[in-house]
Amino acid sequence: MSEELRTVWWDGEALGLIDQRRLPHEQITVRCTDVEAVAHAIKAMVVRGAPAIGCAAAYGMALAARAGAANDSGDGEARALLERLAQAKALLDAQRPTAVNLAWATARVLRATERFVEAGTSPTTAAIAARVLEEAHAIIAEDLAMCHAIGEHGAALIPARGRVLTHCNAGGLATAGYGTALAPIRTAHRQGRAVHVLVDETRPFLQGARLTAWELREAGIPQTLITDNMAGYMMRRGEVDCVIVGADRIVANGDVANKIGTYSLAVLARAHGIPFYVAAPSSTIDLGLASGEQIPIEERAPEEVTHLNGQPIAPAGVAAAHPAFDVTPHELVSAIITERGVIYPPFAEGLRNAVITEGQPRQG
Amino acid sequence: MSEELRTVWWDGEALGLIDQRRLPHEQITVRCTDVEAVAHAIKAMVVRGAPAIGCAAAYGMALAARAGAANDSGDGEARALLERLAQAKALLDAQRPTAVNLAWATARVLRATERFVEAGTSPTTAAIAARVLEEAHAIIAEDLAMCHAIGEHGAALIPARGRVLTHCNAGGLATAGYGTALAPIRTAHRQGRAVHVLVDETRPFLQGARLTAWELREAGIPQTLITDNMAGYMMRRGEVDCVIVGADRIVANGDVANKIGTYSLAVLARAHGIPFYVAAPSSTIDLGLASGEQIPIEERAPEEVTHLNGQPIAPAGVAAAHPAFDVTPHELVSAIITERGVIYPPFAEGLRNAVITEGQPRQG
Repeated sequence: MSEELRTVWWDGEALGLIDQRRLPHEQITVRCTDVEAVAHAIKAMVVRGAPAIGCAAAYGMALAARAGAANDSGDGEARALLERLAQAKALLDAQRPTAVNLAWATARVLRATERFVEAGTSPTTAAIAARVLEEAHAIIAEDLAMCHAIGEHGAALIPARGRVLTHCNAGGLATAGYGTALAPIRTAHRQGRAVHVLVDETRPFLQGARLTAWELREAGIPQTLITDNMAGYMMRRGEVDCVIVGADRIVANGDVANKIGTYSLAVLARAHGIPFYVAAPSSTIDLGLASGEQIPIEERAPEEVTHLNGQPIAPAGVAAAHPAFDVTPHELVSAIITERGVIYPPFAEGLRNAVITEGQPRQG
Repeated sequence: MSEELRTVWWDGEALGLIDQRRLPHEQITVRCTDVEAVAHAIKAMVVRGAPAIGCAAAYGMALAARAGAANDSGDGEARALLERLAQAKALLDAQRPTAVNLAWATARVLRATERFVEAGTSPTTAAIAARVLEEAHAIIAEDLAMCHAIGEHGAALIPARGRVLTHCNAGGLATAGYGTALAPIRTAHRQGRAVHVLVDETRPFLQGARLTAWELREAGIPQTLITDNMAGYMMRRGEVDCVIVGADRIVANGDVANKIGTYSLAVLARAHGIPFYVAAPSSTIDLGLASGEQIPIEERAPEEVTHLNGQPIAPAGVAAAHPAFDVTPHELVSAIITERGVIYPPFAEGLRNAVITEGQPRQG
């Protein structure tokens, strides 16, 4: 795997995925040749991260269309193929019902195909299947372009020989391949700047130790893994120039929901005068909520804290808390990096402009 | 095991120890009947925590004296027994060469025994062995009294229905049985106050999840285990009334060295207006250093971060940092709780008074 990490790709005949369940210990490629295999890979979390799931599902639609075209049986074939695609969408969407990008991607593919069929040129099923594949390619290309744009905008914020602390995995593994919080780091590295990354291991799931450390190693970007509780020590020693994290949701006033531990990092960064940046696509911005207090925090199973890889690490019967996310108030955020540029405080107007273009809410 | 957790005890004929390597999954007692067994238990970390190691070593001396007395062979027996005790001290001290309390405890036992022999009453070897055992009992009794005094002084700082956050294990398992940072919590609980403990799991060794959670469960004290990166979230939600941690060293200006992660907690506590207390015996105070910047920070093996229970949790070849301790500057410390009372800022005079009593440096 080169610096051009690909999480989701089309190999000419099938969908390729990195099996993220096996990382970092094994690098296994899963090849999906039909929509059922794609659905299973999404369900089993072979692929994770909302943008990456959306890309995989789009190729699932393409595989369904190809199978339908191969079985072409004469009259009414276009209508039958659209029906088959609607069934494929229902199958794929059901695998991770809360993943917004999944249903968004399958709906986009289905709509584009319907428009193609309804354009009146009476396309063959082979032509329709080609159109589906083309739309899947467009989705993955747009995702990569979005990540690269975040990288360009964000890299300018990283000082020469910059030491960047990051948390969780908002990397190429969560997108089609370049990442959001890791994009500015990748771009700075490509520009030949001596960037060094401090990687929070990110308990309890260790996404930092397992995924971020793996993809930085593959990209040849220097890094040092730390336990989450070392961040303050590193900041006080002057070993951190900035913090860059991803976001699960950014609300209208600039408050940011992200992986648990992000808020502690933001408080520590402020106490040490270190810039704290959030990098995320504009689709993450939710103007429907006025402030972070309205964001519900998912409480996950305590066993995910008391156990690791199925083995208990705490005494039996001990209660544990497991908030999966926290909210960082906008006062602690130095800037928000999107594919459309860097937004500085006060955030409200910049966030509105990033979402609303040409007078219309952007399709997200 | 009742609320009266005992880590190190004399069962009438032998030394009893909780095997801390097996906690929290198994509660195994190790019984040492000779000094060699005690030396092995110290080396193998059956017993850990500087005060607890000192107590165990004192009983190792008692077992050596008993064996010497049993082999009493006539003339010069007192001198031979003292020689045997000096050999036992050398054996015990060599097991953990950096544990200050170990050599301190064996030296104290040897000195007391020499004074007893030199007092001119020509004691029998049986009487000498009894004197050694008496001194070991005194050491453990003083350790327990010290912990209980810390508990009394510290409990007064915990509000009614107080929710206390702690880090690592400065508990009964690290002392003869009542603990330092956990002593105020134990005392508040005994007083019938509804104290609740938030336990930082304390990566990378998980002393919080393994040891503190275990001893709080045994004591019936309500607790919630959290990952270290949840502390800020809990504070912001108003779920923490105070933080109490232990100390490995407290220097003249009140700067505190303690387990890695302590400093981050202190910054977070300050940002949320939450009192941050350090509980430690006065023997932890080191007036020889003016400030925390002079405290060397032990860098341990990176494999202790990249592996857990011998299994890798990060990709092969990834560099990791492992500072074992950090330094919390005195500005962030609300008070220091010792067995001699609570010391408030500015700390310098109070720390001097706690160490120097009746015009003499206290034996530490």
